[in-house]
Amino acid sequence: MRKVYLDNASTTPLLPEVREAMLPYLGEYFGNPSCIHEWGDAPREAVEEARSGVGRLIGADNSEEIIFTSGGTESNNFAVKGIALANQAKGKHIVVSAIEHFSVLYSGKTLEKLGFEMTVVPVDKDGIVHPEDVQKAIRKDTTLVSIMHANGEVGSLQPIAEIAKITRAKNVVFHTDAVASTGTIPVNVKELGVDLLSLSGNQFYGPKGIGALWVRRGVRIMPYLDGGVQEGGRRAGTENIPGIVGLGKAAEVAMAKMPERIKNLTPLRDKLLKELPAKVSHVTITGPLTNRLPGHASFCVEFIEGEAMLMLLNSQGVGVTSGSACTSRALKASHVLIAMGLDHAIAQGSLLFSFGINNTKEDVDYILEVLPPIVERLRQMSPLWDKYLKSGKGGK
Amino acid sequence: MRKVYLDNASTTPLLPEVREAMLPYLGEYFGNPSCIHEWGDAPREAVEEARSGVGRLIGADNSEEIIFTSGGTESNNFAVKGIALANQAKGKHIVVSAIEHFSVLYSGKTLEKLGFEMTVVPVDKDGIVHPEDVQKAIRKDTTLVSIMHANGEVGSLQPIAEIAKITRAKNVVFHTDAVASTGTIPVNVKELGVDLLSLSGNQFYGPKGIGALWVRRGVRIMPYLDGGVQEGGRRAGTENIPGIVGLGKAAEVAMAKMPERIKNLTPLRDKLLKELPAKVSHVTITGPLTNRLPGHASFCVEFIEGEAMLMLLNSQGVGVTSGSACTSRALKASHVLIAMGLDHAIAQGSLLFSFGINNTKEDVDYILEVLPPIVERLRQMSPLWDKYLKSGKGGK
Repeated sequence: MRKVYLDNASTTPLLPEVREAMLPYLGEYFGNPSCIHEWGDAPREAVEEARSGVGRLIGADNSEEIIFTSGGTESNNFAVKGIALANQAKGKHIVVSAIEHFSVLYSGKTLEKLGFEMTVVPVDKDGIVHPEDVQKAIRKDTTLVSIMHANGEVGSLQPIAEIAKITRAKNVVFHTDAVASTGTIPVNVKELGVDLLSLSGNQFYGPKGIGALWVRRGVRIMPYLDGGVQEGGRRAGTENIPGIVGLGKAAEVAMAKMPERIKNLTPLRDKLLKELPAKVSHVTITGPLTNRLPGHASFCVEFIEGEAMLMLLNSQGVGVTSGSACTSRALKASHVLIAMGLDHAIAQGSLLFSFGINNTKEDVDYILEVLPPIVERLRQMSPLWDKYLKSGKGGK
Repeated sequence: MRKVYLDNASTTPLLPEVREAMLPYLGEYFGNPSCIHEWGDAPREAVEEARSGVGRLIGADNSEEIIFTSGGTESNNFAVKGIALANQAKGKHIVVSAIEHFSVLYSGKTLEKLGFEMTVVPVDKDGIVHPEDVQKAIRKDTTLVSIMHANGEVGSLQPIAEIAKITRAKNVVFHTDAVASTGTIPVNVKELGVDLLSLSGNQFYGPKGIGALWVRRGVRIMPYLDGGVQEGGRRAGTENIPGIVGLGKAAEVAMAKMPERIKNLTPLRDKLLKELPAKVSHVTITGPLTNRLPGHASFCVEFIEGEAMLMLLNSQGVGVTSGSACTSRALKASHVLIAMGLDHAIAQGSLLFSFGINNTKEDVDYILEVLPPIVERLRQMSPLWDKYLKSGKGGK
């Protein structure tokens, strides 16, 4: 059977050249970079080279502003809690959007338990935050605004540079979760104007278990992992050398190949966004049509339950998801879709296709071939569909 | 030149069989375990198999009590802060020992900033905590005792089971940092009687960037990384699959080979502990003679500065450290040695040899050959040595 992986938003495969770069650090160069003897030398140099590579990918002036973490979730926890806790003297209020990743939203909820307040700004029906809503939400005691760069569930890109103008004018620290965008589309901390930025290796063909938080020089942040003096005293723990090296290599490849990747991915996305609603009735595109991640096509299929659709697609060799991988096993309607105004019943039929560098036009054709009969089969079993037909609103 | 790595306390090399076990997860099996489609299946099964392997290594009844983390530092931060923050209703006091790893001590200091109190119990001259001191330190509002199983700097083993009897009687949660011991000597959570236990892969020939926290079922802990529902909702973030698989494999190998490893390492340690003080004057063994980690021999060489000794040993192909790798670049006298009552001048001459599975008796002979002339050379340049000689207390 044809195997079609269309879940690159959940995680990407590791590039062979990234794996090659990692292997020496899973072998001969096993030393601890903190050590003074020669076993520490190669790993230490490799870490600094990777730091430069990641810095270049995001346009950081100074690679020392990059702190390696265990992934996007740690970066987001570190940013949100670290800024809020370090700046309590100024105030105890933070602002996030309704469609942030749970690692941001739940970090905010943890802060609420510690006596902080959090304002959640809405998004429009396309899943876009309006800068004026951020402006309105900022108070005298606001210390942090955290708005994601791209949403992984509906692909929407946020007006980060515009929001940054507001936060700068109001002298509030601005963090962006760029986990879904970094390595996929251009991300430049200077152009975005943010103060902190989260990224993750497994989102752009790098390793799992590694990410980074970029913290603009001069920004006060509380370390998240206490202990040794690694990462300039800002993130303790023996470094994950193979992971860091892999992240650096993935960053380097992403920089070199980004234009080509975007050129290849965009037509796949656009073909699916255009043709799927024509092939299956009662399908809504979620997120914007063009202001979205290049390989990202998401829909809601009405009168159907996403979970069953995923399983039938899997039986046809297709790997997709119904929303965030982090919560797909929690089986709740996506908070992102609800925030965009969709009702729960429709949000249950969510389907997310995220193309990667190994996908082709034929993969889209395959989806367009296998999905319609699956939807038809599921609707025949659906009491909602039956009710809808009897209501006379639909044809047959 | 002969190359002798004697710094396994800083980090161990990765076993070839561990690397082999990891490779498929750096290749074909790249999926996200949270996904419902088949790409998630092999990684998810591998994670659960590794969890069982780690559980077996530490004698856990239930592998669900194992939470994978990014390493020992995260495990210790998670344990100390997670227990303290989850049990604030009972009290805001914790007890640690003076020789804990900085990831425990500084987690305690962070808690102090949040309004908690921390009592630091002393150790004796061998670096051993006395259970009665723990007993005395526990108050009505104590919610956590955290005492390490083995100290990585002086090798001392702590009377964990005895302390556990006290904490149990007083109904206080007991965490042990077993990063330096797990995989090296028998560690059994039931025999130790603890409630939480930290371990780290790179301490027993597993990968860097991965560790675990064992939390006894029923113990209330606050999640440390907020976000998705991974690890039973207790540790969010896409799993580091290759790291987890490597940790599981390293655990399996450690269980199988532990008796043989201990049998080989102990004579190396004992030979060095016995013969080095005979070859170099004014050398003190730090830590206990026998109640210590099998491959661990540590000393203080008087009238000398550890840093210079490390560099000259490195020039002879020998990799050792002067204390904790996490702080070796901080160049402060070890808090462990100071807690044991050594004065700062002597603590500066600290030397730590940690043998691993690749070391032989010939490595010990090589140390005994190259170290004495290095010490002599450094002492000739030392004003302290000069002063000592002139005082007439020494010979020559």
